[in-house]
Amino acid sequence: MNALIVYSGGLDSSTLLHQYKDDIRLAVSFHYGSKHNDREIAYAKLNCEELGIRHIVIHLGFMNDYFKSDLLQNGGEIPEGHYAAENMKKTIVPFRNGIMLSIAVGLAESNDLDAVLIGNHFGDHTIYPDCRRSFIDAFTTAAKEGTEAGIRILSPYCDITKRDIALIGQKMGLDYTKTYSCYKGGEKHCGKCGTCVERKEALTGFDPTEYDD
Amino acid sequence: MNALIVYSGGLDSSTLLHQYKDDIRLAVSFHYGSKHNDREIAYAKLNCEELGIRHIVIHLGFMNDYFKSDLLQNGGEIPEGHYAAENMKKTIVPFRNGIMLSIAVGLAESNDLDAVLIGNHFGDHTIYPDCRRSFIDAFTTAAKEGTEAGIRILSPYCDITKRDIALIGQKMGLDYTKTYSCYKGGEKHCGKCGTCVERKEALTGFDPTEYDD
Repeated sequence: MNALIVYSGGLDSSTLLHQYKDDIRLAVSFHYGSKHNDREIAYAKLNCEELGIRHIVIHLGFMNDYFKSDLLQNGGEIPEGHYAAENMKKTIVPFRNGIMLSIAVGLAESNDLDAVLIGNHFGDHTIYPDCRRSFIDAFTTAAKEGTEAGIRILSPYCDITKRDIALIGQKMGLDYTKTYSCYKGGEKHCGKCGTCVERKEALTGFDPTEYDD
Repeated sequence: MNALIVYSGGLDSSTLLHQYKDDIRLAVSFHYGSKHNDREIAYAKLNCEELGIRHIVIHLGFMNDYFKSDLLQNGGEIPEGHYAAENMKKTIVPFRNGIMLSIAVGLAESNDLDAVLIGNHFGDHTIYPDCRRSFIDAFTTAAKEGTEAGIRILSPYCDITKRDIALIGQKMGLDYTKTYSCYKGGEKHCGKCGTCVERKEALTGFDPTEYDD
């Protein structure tokens, strides 16, 4: 297969990048104005350089201008605590996966690629509707029907947990210091926001991350 | 209903805007780098001002940079002739409706709206995969599943022709000189490109357009 990957530079998509590196012809990062985009994308660039994979950054400045989410620079404070907590809902960026996948599908068709990889996983499902199997399945049909080549959406982690993903990475010898997760976007991972809590749980026993707490 | 409309400023979406004006809270035009975006969007702005509907323009400059299509400023010459002709395929912008709809869905959710209107029609189906009923149906499910509010996609012209749309507009007394279609983006409609040919057919008998041929 000749695939494009939606690649943030976080733990999940970095594992996906390494697992499918032989099939990936293009990696795309989206700068949508979140507090942590700059740091994530720096790692995305680094990993792609090391693997010799073409990497581009798509700027979606309008999301920070017009979308409502505390994840964005124009939003409120990043909440702390576990993903399951109600206040973590404030970090939803409405239909973000739909937007990133749609642009990825158009880019894939424009570059004669046949598949789009995305690293959403089971642990995202509680909070984020556009990470769930029902969304991915419907969008997969939309991408197939809406393109000449019938572009495929591949979401190999959709039914496994972040812990499972980290174990895949550990087996591959992946260096997780070269990934970034923290929603606050500081120099060090804060260790307290929803995604830091998840990262800690996923990497338990082999976590190389230096946390601020 | 409280709807957002994907609004180009062309014949179809201008008719849609007027038909659903009482339900529309936000009109969104996408500037994706086509040869005719500037002229289309000027009319979109004008019609929204006249109806007192809030109008925003979302810039998608990356499409001109990375997408392959003769419709774009970086693409080749606009082909002439009927939509059904094979060379009109060069004007496909891959997954454009998927991209515009996805952003529209995120904007709708961010602005507490419940529906997205789009003016694709039956005549688009031959050439453009992301205008067909099968795409719209799958994407409608994706938008419902991928948002907290279950945003609806409404495509009321999907199964009727451009002629049918123009007749709806005529009945409403719509002034079609305040719409723009030509893919070449000149001051006057060229009268020869696929979309001009379609416009002429649709407005037969009551066409106020001044064509260049």
